[in-house]
Amino acid sequence: MSLVVVGSLAFDTIETPKERKEGIVGGSCTYCALAASYFTSPKMVGVVGEDFPQETIALFKKRKIDLQGLEFAKGKSFHWEGRYGHDPNHRITLKLEMNVFADFKPKLPQAYKGSEILFLANIHPELQEDILNQFKNPKWVAMDTINHWIKNNREALLRVLRRCNLFFCNDEEVKLLTKEINLFKAGKKILEMGPSLVAIKKGEHGALILGKEIVFGVLAHPCEDVIDPTGAGDSFAGGFLGYLDSVTEGSEKELRRAAVYGSVMASFSIEDFGIERFKTLTRQEVKKRFVEFKKLVSF
Amino acid sequence: MSLVVVGSLAFDTIETPKERKEGIVGGSCTYCALAASYFTSPKMVGVVGEDFPQETIALFKKRKIDLQGLEFAKGKSFHWEGRYGHDPNHRITLKLEMNVFADFKPKLPQAYKGSEILFLANIHPELQEDILNQFKNPKWVAMDTINHWIKNNREALLRVLRRCNLFFCNDEEVKLLTKEINLFKAGKKILEMGPSLVAIKKGEHGALILGKEIVFGVLAHPCEDVIDPTGAGDSFAGGFLGYLDSVTEGSEKELRRAAVYGSVMASFSIEDFGIERFKTLTRQEVKKRFVEFKKLVSF
Repeated sequence: MSLVVVGSLAFDTIETPKERKEGIVGGSCTYCALAASYFTSPKMVGVVGEDFPQETIALFKKRKIDLQGLEFAKGKSFHWEGRYGHDPNHRITLKLEMNVFADFKPKLPQAYKGSEILFLANIHPELQEDILNQFKNPKWVAMDTINHWIKNNREALLRVLRRCNLFFCNDEEVKLLTKEINLFKAGKKILEMGPSLVAIKKGEHGALILGKEIVFGVLAHPCEDVIDPTGAGDSFAGGFLGYLDSVTEGSEKELRRAAVYGSVMASFSIEDFGIERFKTLTRQEVKKRFVEFKKLVSF
Repeated sequence: MSLVVVGSLAFDTIETPKERKEGIVGGSCTYCALAASYFTSPKMVGVVGEDFPQETIALFKKRKIDLQGLEFAKGKSFHWEGRYGHDPNHRITLKLEMNVFADFKPKLPQAYKGSEILFLANIHPELQEDILNQFKNPKWVAMDTINHWIKNNREALLRVLRRCNLFFCNDEEVKLLTKEINLFKAGKKILEMGPSLVAIKKGEHGALILGKEIVFGVLAHPCEDVIDPTGAGDSFAGGFLGYLDSVTEGSEKELRRAAVYGSVMASFSIEDFGIERFKTLTRQEVKKRFVEFKKLVSF
């Protein structure tokens, strides 16, 4: 199969209770593609400015990420600034500078259009829709979003959701979108909105996977020091979809394992600032942690 | 082995966002003993007033609960009134009437003193200490508590904790007690305070079991309609300790299964108001749900 990841590439300024870091490379596409690269060679769709580090481009290449769909534009890269409280599940956005992302109208490379898995990471739902329209007939259309679009662009979001079969969201978002406080009920409502599968990310509590026939819970890896929660959700999607791209059918068993690999990749992502952890992470470490996840829940 | 459960027997007034119910039979000892009764014949220590329903006493007897340590006092039974918000994990106490519980000085029946498992459910830590002093040499001393004692009777609580080897608490309590926001770090701090095992209850997110050699996560059963969360924690302890009492060693495998049975019993408890669900619940249903828990996490 083949996996296309559409999303942002960015510089982040991150404040945690312990530290403030500026100019950290981030973005939903960056995290997702890096996480997915441990299972497949993802195809990237996004835009960077002239300031984007060559070192990160070199890392993408080293990880065999296909950069044909990555646009290099004049100007500065997208910039996000956020602050985490003592609870790493809660953050506030302090600043957003769209920069080169403001005029981003992705034209997909011809070679991408027949891809079987498409991940529309968190971007404006109308942009997600525009990209989706350029695809032939993907087997899996996955998407993510944030509260901002749920509140302000609900109609466009619902249109994309109807055409999507795998929805990634966090517990807060799924409750906001469905106006339902019970997570299982909320998840079931999502299943009536289009997707055949919903992956609800719950931070330190792991994730819940719901489908018409599937109820599966995956824990978060016990992490005593969450250094930077940024990108955990996109790394989850990357691990999930990267693994899914590496297998044949998308059977229930494979979907369950995909969710565990999602949780595995998220657990690495939060161990250091930005994408630092992916610079040294090996496939062996990924496999080892997968086995640890088995032990964590076996009885 | 044999299990002694010490705690409250009460009338509860319960407000959920949907309903208000008065005169519901509850109390930590009630829930815990009923849940444990699916695995063993727990011995009850507590006090009720003249208003306590004969019907409930008959239920205890039907479930083979040993009532030798249950005191029948003149006056009214303990009364608790609480309100749940839309998030069933959060509740406030509206009223507490101690009634017969105010002067409760439990004298343990001779036959109880050599019991191997003692559960000190949520009561005043000095009362917990007093009861603990009456025991010979229990193999397992388990305890629970609430925020109120952590804030107001910390010293007495820490004294009991030092002599306890299994601590049940919820995520909020463990954070308050250890002043540590990260759940794994908080759990490890508890292990330095006395217990060799801590079971952190996380409501809809299940529970985390931490020991020097054990890290085990158990999910909550997917419940679309939490009718009444009251007693879920005590039912968890009841399932856990009841199962533990029914096995031989307390090996890691048995402790993991005990935690799952804890989660199983909690999941039944919240399906109806008060102890209603235990009136019809069968051992077969308990076994069936245990199997469902396996499926929920298997990959």
